Amino acid sequence: MSHNSFGHLFRVTTFGESHGVALGCVVDGCPPGLPLEADEIQAELDRRKPGQSRFTTQRREPDQVKILSGVFSDDRTGGRQLTTGTPIALMIENTDQRSKDYSEIRDSYRPGHADYTYDAKYGIRDYRGGGRSSARETAARVAAGAVARKVIPGITIRAALVQMGPHAIDRARWDWDEVGRNPFFCPDADAARQYETYLDEIRKNGSSVGAVIEVVAEGVPPGLGAPIYGKLDADLAAAMMSINAVKGVEIGDGFAAAALRGEDNADEMRSGNDGRPRFLGNHAGGILGGISSGEPVVVRFAVKPTSSILTPRRSVNRDGQEIDLITKGRHDPCVGIRAVPVAEAMMACVLADHFLRHRGQVGDRT
Amino acid sequence: MSHNSFGHLFRVTTFGESHGVALGCVVDGCPPGLPLEADEIQAELDRRKPGQSRFTTQRREPDQVKILSGVFSDDRTGGRQLTTGTPIALMIENTDQRSKDYSEIRDSYRPGHADYTYDAKYGIRDYRGGGRSSARETAARVAAGAVARKVIPGITIRAALVQMGPHAIDRARWDWDEVGRNPFFCPDADAARQYETYLDEIRKNGSSVGAVIEVVAEGVPPGLGAPIYGKLDADLAAAMMSINAVKGVEIGDGFAAAALRGEDNADEMRSGNDGRPRFLGNHAGGILGGISSGEPVVVRFAVKPTSSILTPRRSVNRDGQEIDLITKGRHDPCVGIRAVPVAEAMMACVLADHFLRHRGQVGDRT
Amino acid sequence: MSHNSFGHLFRVTTFGESHGVALGCVVDGCPPGLPLEADEIQAELDRRKPGQSRFTTQRREPDQVKILSGVFSDDRTGGRQLTTGTPIALMIENTDQRSKDYSEIRDSYRPGHADYTYDAKYGIRDYRGGGRSSARETAARVAAGAVARKVIPGITIRAALVQMGPHAIDRARWDWDEVGRNPFFCPDADAARQYETYLDEIRKNGSSVGAVIEVVAEGVPPGLGAPIYGKLDADLAAAMMSINAVKGVEIGDGFAAAALRGEDNADEMRSGNDGRPRFLGNHAGGILGGISSGEPVVVRFAVKPTSSILTPRRSVNRDGQEIDLITKGRHDPCVGIRAVPVAEAMMACVLADHFLRHRGQVGDRT
Amino acid sequence: MSHNSFGHLFRVTTFGESHGVALGCVVDGCPPGLPLEADEIQAELDRRKPGQSRFTTQRREPDQVKILSGVFSDDRTGGRQLTTGTPIALMIENTDQRSKDYSEIRDSYRPGHADYTYDAKYGIRDYRGGGRSSARETAARVAAGAVARKVIPGITIRAALVQMGPHAIDRARWDWDEVGRNPFFCPDADAARQYETYLDEIRKNGSSVGAVIEVVAEGVPPGLGAPIYGKLDADLAAAMMSINAVKGVEIGDGFAAAALRGEDNADEMRSGNDGRPRFLGNHAGGILGGISSGEPVVVRFAVKPTSSILTPRRSVNRDGQEIDLITKGRHDPCVGIRAVPVAEAMMACVLADHFLRHRGQVGDRT
Repeated sequence: MSHNSFGHLFRVTTFGESHGVALGCVVDGCPPGLPLEADEIQAELDRRKPGQSRFTTQRREPDQVKILSGVFSDDRTGGRQLTTGTPIALMIENTDQRSKDYSEIRDSYRPGHADYTYDAKYGIRDYRGGGRSSARETAARVAAGAVARKVIPGITIRAALVQMGPHAIDRARWDWDEVGRNPFFCPDADAARQYETYLDEIRKNGSSVGAVIEVVAEGVPPGLGAPIYGKLDADLAAAMMSINAVKGVEIGDGFAAAALRGEDNADEMRSGNDGRPRFLGNHAGGILGGISSGEPVVVRFAVKPTSSILTPRRSVNRDGQEIDLITKGRHDPCVGIRAVPVAEAMMACVLADHFLRHRGQVGDRT
Repeated sequence: MSHNSFGHLFRVTTFGESHGVALGCVVDGCPPGLPLEADEIQAELDRRKPGQSRFTTQRREPDQVKILSGVFSDDRTGGRQLTTGTPIALMIENTDQRSKDYSEIRDSYRPGHADYTYDAKYGIRDYRGGGRSSARETAARVAAGAVARKVIPGITIRAALVQMGPHAIDRARWDWDEVGRNPFFCPDADAARQYETYLDEIRKNGSSVGAVIEVVAEGVPPGLGAPIYGKLDADLAAAMMSINAVKGVEIGDGFAAAALRGEDNADEMRSGNDGRPRFLGNHAGGILGGISSGEPVVVRFAVKPTSSILTPRRSVNRDGQEIDLITKGRHDPCVGIRAVPVAEAMMACVLADHFLRHRGQVGDRT
Repeated sequence: MSHNSFGHLFRVTTFGESHGVALGCVVDGCPPGLPLEADEIQAELDRRKPGQSRFTTQRREPDQVKILSGVFSDDRTGGRQLTTGTPIALMIENTDQRSKDYSEIRDSYRPGHADYTYDAKYGIRDYRGGGRSSARETAARVAAGAVARKVIPGITIRAALVQMGPHAIDRARWDWDEVGRNPFFCPDADAARQYETYLDEIRKNGSSVGAVIEVVAEGVPPGLGAPIYGKLDADLAAAMMSINAVKGVEIGDGFAAAALRGEDNADEMRSGNDGRPRFLGNHAGGILGGISSGEPVVVRFAVKPTSSILTPRRSVNRDGQEIDLITKGRHDPCVGIRAVPVAEAMMACVLADHFLRHRGQVGDRT
Repeated sequence: MSHNSFGHLFRVTTFGESHGVALGCVVDGCPPGLPLEADEIQAELDRRKPGQSRFTTQRREPDQVKILSGVFSDDRTGGRQLTTGTPIALMIENTDQRSKDYSEIRDSYRPGHADYTYDAKYGIRDYRGGGRSSARETAARVAAGAVARKVIPGITIRAALVQMGPHAIDRARWDWDEVGRNPFFCPDADAARQYETYLDEIRKNGSSVGAVIEVVAEGVPPGLGAPIYGKLDADLAAAMMSINAVKGVEIGDGFAAAALRGEDNADEMRSGNDGRPRFLGNHAGGILGGISSGEPVVVRFAVKPTSSILTPRRSVNRDGQEIDLITKGRHDPCVGIRAVPVAEAMMACVLADHFLRHRGQVGDRT
């Protein structure tokens, strides 16, 4: 058991606070012999890095990753750096911990934040920048996800921001290439423009807004996941729900399935070319009975609006006195944006773990 | 790691297939000294038992539970049966495994079912009644949940069916007492009548429909749950997603939070009478930063329609031949109904586990 | 985490008390497609069964095992019963719980027994026959071990009683065939005669004696085990130490290695026929750096004398009063004898677990 | 499951290779509010540090520890640095990785070393200084142990080298104060002198020798540990066996118990002053039925001689060619010496874990 680890055969333990010395993770159980360079991890981190547009926090963190262990290169590896099967420790030093007066949040509980619950649980709290509850922890997840992708090379994992506040994309216009062309990871160019106007207004008003992210994994072989408490969808639900501010997760049709009849929901099958069935639909989001079907695995999750806003809110302080609170400081007006690469990382980690677990139980015939 | 266990300090391992000899569970880590009678577990099981109305499967299973271990009584316990701190094994023997010709589902894959994925994973499958993928496994969860309730005596856990197909309840009419008065666990008498008419039509047509269940835990102390991968909401998401046919889970406002602004979503606080803050809203569903806030914990999940229907569906068989398939047999037209006591059980197990984990880390000051 | 489970990918959870309804286990993670009949498990249980000679407890338990789940047979399996990859629950009902007056041990603590520590920990204790602390629990382990052997078919696991009280075998006379010919699992016919005379005297005096058991696994492929806390020898040490009454465990030369010099201890290597090194010695007991070397894995462990003896011992009762205590009842004068099949079972379970873990991380090239 | 973690509620994950960038650990689950300064951890590390006498390796590593996360101080903590309940990451950078020609051990397998088994398992190996299999990893354990001691403040943990090669201490001369006065952690001044003469000869001959270490924990409350696979002695056995070069572990009388009769082995009890029984002996080493009795917990383990010696040994290289091998480089002639603080650390970690697990299950009445 561990409060700060996830996965079993591909196991990730993260550490670090927003304004501490460093944050990072230990990836345990990674197979040996996989090429892994810091640059590759860095490329993923750069996608999540703050301060890349006016729509994310203005904290300037280079988020430079260092590999502390678990890799090796010599002339026999042809100079390539390979994983060795031992734990891979990754560290990101904090550099832009702006020296500031924390006296307000030190003693007060920001509504919607974890300030009160951390105090209630631990009786002590590193309040600087949110401490351990800061979304800064997700940098470590993205780093781990870059390793996980190496474990499952045939699988393509991509995510997109499909809703921001009241604005949703038009699925008919979905274009994965568009995701890299706007600061929102939005797959619909028209919606991206709507997001831009909308978020500018939110930002200027010192407000914030929620979002919905969709993650899709293609090329997942059938057979990953295990009944009953090792279900692939259950692990994905936990993985996504563990991301900061997430309040809902769905697989395939998700909540919409509640309104469907059996005839409409069950994905029919025909004979496929590769000896596997070909599914005529994917209401199931690629998972049946907790086990992957070979169809794309589709997960969606909802992120609540950041609680750090400029509008005064009623609250209390540590002494129980009633106060009105404004949260200044550098914050993301829509944390959903930077959650997109995090979502991909969590999907990669869960799939890598289940790939290894499956191989352990049934061997290489996967 | 275990494919068939959940929880850590309060740990439940289930076993058994739909038409095997027996199913059951082992509850490990239960505190000693708690009164526990088979009757109490039976009472919970009877709520989930099939064949109690025309709206659930007509399989007749008494679902009689036996306690095999972990309890003790003598004159010093005053004749009361108490838990001893050792593993509590619970067994339910299968009795109504109707002898039938399984040749069709033996060789064919029911669309929307786990038939294909089990074969893809394991290369072998107990197809009788769905084997391990049958919702019959949830009887073991309900039994475990009855034990879990003993661990957290001050907490009230209740669930209700808040949507069936297109019909949702009116939250203004929510009445917990109503839940026990209709065969749907519906908290709104008017909605219950709608459900009845609707489900009769579904049932007569050999179809099926999805549903939404809401589970509420009141009296949860603040402080349960732990960052980052031991978050209370992440564990609840996994627990609910692991229930058969569940495709989506949300906490508090859930997906609706995506459309909210920060001002509207953050639950404001005032000073409470007991020294704790009093929250002026519960958009968060009782969980902030993965830790309980003291407000009611509110979880909702969506269940897809049963895939076993009388309308012929296109499918393939084990040999890859294309077929048309009708699923006869005894099935629930809306599996959401019997998921209601299961949801309560999962909530109880997760809270019991987190209660013990929290006590382990910080002691009795909870 | 679980107090009553061991293993990870091949995971065994046991339950049950000496005089409860039943005891048994759930084996989770077993690969699918392995032939498994109750008879095969029974054959192992029969080796451990009490009452087979005058040298073990006279309790008469048939120890009849029932498979409750996780196996399947039909015409497609050719009538053979195969594992399905789902949890295998095994149950042994207790039948010879002699109705007796437990008033003495109910209130008193037998010196050397777990009576006091169970009370100190749990505040309650099933004292009938020792409850959960009884060696009767090891029947469940033997059953699990029979399943584990199926997972690692190329490995031969055998154990023997190499010392009883002051009498040790002569290793030059070691003959595995002899083990089945005497009631002590002794590999040296001369020593077996010594054991017999000695134990008869012990038994008649109502005393008891300790023993040393050696377990050897041949055919273990190199590569099983993992640094640092998944070392094969560390897991074997825990597995053996968890057997009732065990007070010491050693691998290969064990404690004798402390007195050796580097030149004498390091097993030299030559080129082998199969492309693997051939070791010229096995001081290491088949494990180097926590990983199997391909040489036989050799584990030895010491069992203390049963504490239940007829000589009065000073003790206290629950109320803290000083008493003199004699333990009557049916007991093994040397619990080491029946520990022999238990040792083999534990070895099998640990190796099966590590085999699956290794395959998970590096694939089938094992 | 994790190959590089141990413990459950107090969980330690280590990482790092002998000649990599850094090594360290993440301690997860530590209770909040405990004072913890880097200096205190450093003090423990300094006891294990190499190069402190001519009897340990001449590698010069400052072993300077940095706390990366999990602690906090401000004016409210009175300037004291306290744990926060979040993961504590500790890092030790490697500085004295002497640049050398590793070509010999790169391609050859040192007899008695993990070189071959790592290659057999992973197909790749960081051979520099032994990589992950180096005892340098134990620095991270010692750091974690310093944190663990904070969790169990009333418990005194001390270890000593009780045997070196053929020379054992005289228990009648045991003096804990002596342990700090000689470079061997030897509790018997006369034996220390013997060790010195003996080890000088060993060292000059380029040989090595084994040892026995004894660890004693006083003040352990009764009730820690849990049946059946969470036994305190089983966890201690695994913990000690996981230390480099350990080949045997025993509790209390250990292997000597095999030769005893029940009358001699069972520790009798009398009424104690504090309401607890007073034991008249401690053959059991403070553990009965896997649960602590309140008596001192006594563990002993044997360490084999270092395999790196100057005498040529027969071996093979990666290509299967037969060679003769001498291992030069900086090595400990008796690794048992530096294993002493490591043993204390492992004892502390296991007790801290069981303390929290026990408190989780039964609450603060410990």
